[in-house]
Amino acid sequence: MSNIREIAEKAGISIATVSRYLNDTGYVSDEAKAKIQEIIDEVGYTPNALARAIFTKNSKTIALMIPEITNPFFSQMATVVEEYSSKMGYTLFLCNTEDNKEKEAEYIEVLKSYRVAGIIASRTQCREKYQNIQIPVVSFENHISPSVITVSSDNYNGGKIAFDHLYENGCRRILHIKGPRIFEATEMRCKGFSDAAKEKGLPIDVVELETDFKVKMIEKNLNTIKRLENYDGIFVFNDIAAATVMKRLIENGIDIPEQVQIIGFDDSFIGELLHPSLTTIRQPIEELGSLAVELLIRQIEGEEVPIEDRLIETKLIQRETTLKKR
Amino acid sequence: MSNIREIAEKAGISIATVSRYLNDTGYVSDEAKAKIQEIIDEVGYTPNALARAIFTKNSKTIALMIPEITNPFFSQMATVVEEYSSKMGYTLFLCNTEDNKEKEAEYIEVLKSYRVAGIIASRTQCREKYQNIQIPVVSFENHISPSVITVSSDNYNGGKIAFDHLYENGCRRILHIKGPRIFEATEMRCKGFSDAAKEKGLPIDVVELETDFKVKMIEKNLNTIKRLENYDGIFVFNDIAAATVMKRLIENGIDIPEQVQIIGFDDSFIGELLHPSLTTIRQPIEELGSLAVELLIRQIEGEEVPIEDRLIETKLIQRETTLKKR
Repeated sequence: MSNIREIAEKAGISIATVSRYLNDTGYVSDEAKAKIQEIIDEVGYTPNALARAIFTKNSKTIALMIPEITNPFFSQMATVVEEYSSKMGYTLFLCNTEDNKEKEAEYIEVLKSYRVAGIIASRTQCREKYQNIQIPVVSFENHISPSVITVSSDNYNGGKIAFDHLYENGCRRILHIKGPRIFEATEMRCKGFSDAAKEKGLPIDVVELETDFKVKMIEKNLNTIKRLENYDGIFVFNDIAAATVMKRLIENGIDIPEQVQIIGFDDSFIGELLHPSLTTIRQPIEELGSLAVELLIRQIEGEEVPIEDRLIETKLIQRETTLKKR
Repeated sequence: MSNIREIAEKAGISIATVSRYLNDTGYVSDEAKAKIQEIIDEVGYTPNALARAIFTKNSKTIALMIPEITNPFFSQMATVVEEYSSKMGYTLFLCNTEDNKEKEAEYIEVLKSYRVAGIIASRTQCREKYQNIQIPVVSFENHISPSVITVSSDNYNGGKIAFDHLYENGCRRILHIKGPRIFEATEMRCKGFSDAAKEKGLPIDVVELETDFKVKMIEKNLNTIKRLENYDGIFVFNDIAAATVMKRLIENGIDIPEQVQIIGFDDSFIGELLHPSLTTIRQPIEELGSLAVELLIRQIEGEEVPIEDRLIETKLIQRETTLKKR
């Protein structure tokens, strides 16, 4: 790959002329154009996407920030976002931030310098870095600012649905294992669940985990809960953590759902692989991913899109870890 | 974001001078430099990484092609590659190719135009596109050409270890459920397993699946296998497919490992979540990911790295789906 100077030397044309041609900033004779292009083709300089990226408004490239690519919910979301972006003529780069503020900030800088056309931030840990970014952004889950659209599942109502299901199934000693408080989504799930319990006048226990996904850490956190089997219903804030809770109960000889009923959250592919298969609250991944892409691309293409929260409905997927309703 | 013309106009300096400054192609007075930089800071043009990417040899950005981001093995691999790249001072873009030749080819074009410093191809479906790419490439699993290093687990030996374990555990009616033939890794697992069976003079059955990961498709494929429970030992080519086989057996009332013993492959986090937990052949993900990054960056930084296959040892991780050795 060559730089402008090399191209100019090889073409026997001034650097200024090559720069005018590449940057489209002034007159270049047809003869010079042809010569420059010939050299470019020869030396392997590929100016098209570059020129598009630097000197036009739309590089046709977008980025998805993912907090944890090993979490099946987010990897399924990434797949949907990739498929939908591709259909719309955009190339998608995935950036695995690991909920790490510094990593996310660095990705933002690199993406800006590469002139990506837009970014879908997921569960951002550095909202301030998106403030004066000057490219379209859509946020998933965590809110960034009043000028950025947030797309998320209706986590609050999902929490309510989970409680109502356990309650209707006869559970009266109920535990909620909630996710880390830095995530708006898990906070809302907890709030919906707790509010529904209050409506029924039933006290519940709530335990907060320090991690949302690392299985080893979840297991360690579970050790702090004295007697899981004293509960008859447990709502766990995501499917992976629910699977870890199930495993612990089964190892202790507890029957699910006869002794303890369990509900997860997400409806990632994990739930169906478990035995018994996991009752869960479905986040409509397909809808969430495609809506985020659609809202981003409409902004990239210059449309005035209303800045408002977009909540997508969640629903109960009943499988085998809860009893059939009476 | 602005182009060169706008910066020149705002700075009251000629386009040629701005271009000389940005491209470092000739003399610019300190006064002009300061003025241009001031405008650049003001209008949000971020030339650093761009200049680095276009006009120097090393953009400090690398890309990892992933065949399926929802497969826990590959998402765990992506996490390792990201962490290790970051430690080495490189930013990583993930590209989800979905084993789709056209998608992968398009990513290659975009990455070239963005001047990424190098690419780690995983299980490529379009090796010819990497032939004259002019940037360093390391291949994971599928071979690209004699001039590209291939990193992979020792899948052949992993297959042998799997057979020997089942055989020593007393299995004599053995089935291997193998992955699609387009993947070198699953071919090698099958060959190792079959060769080990031949050495013992034991005939085995082999069934090939059409997919390596989509659970619904695996389930459909399993329907074509008449009586899974007639076997006393099954080696499945990856953990997700093994989980699907387990679920089918458990639903049919078969005891694992008493009636049928099962071994998976990968040692992704899934295996520990299952009940019973899955015996599997571990691919050393940490080692594979960090070695691929190391070999890529050494090439990017100009070192002559020997072009040879790098096979990393696999090993048996015994859990509960096989019997303890007699």
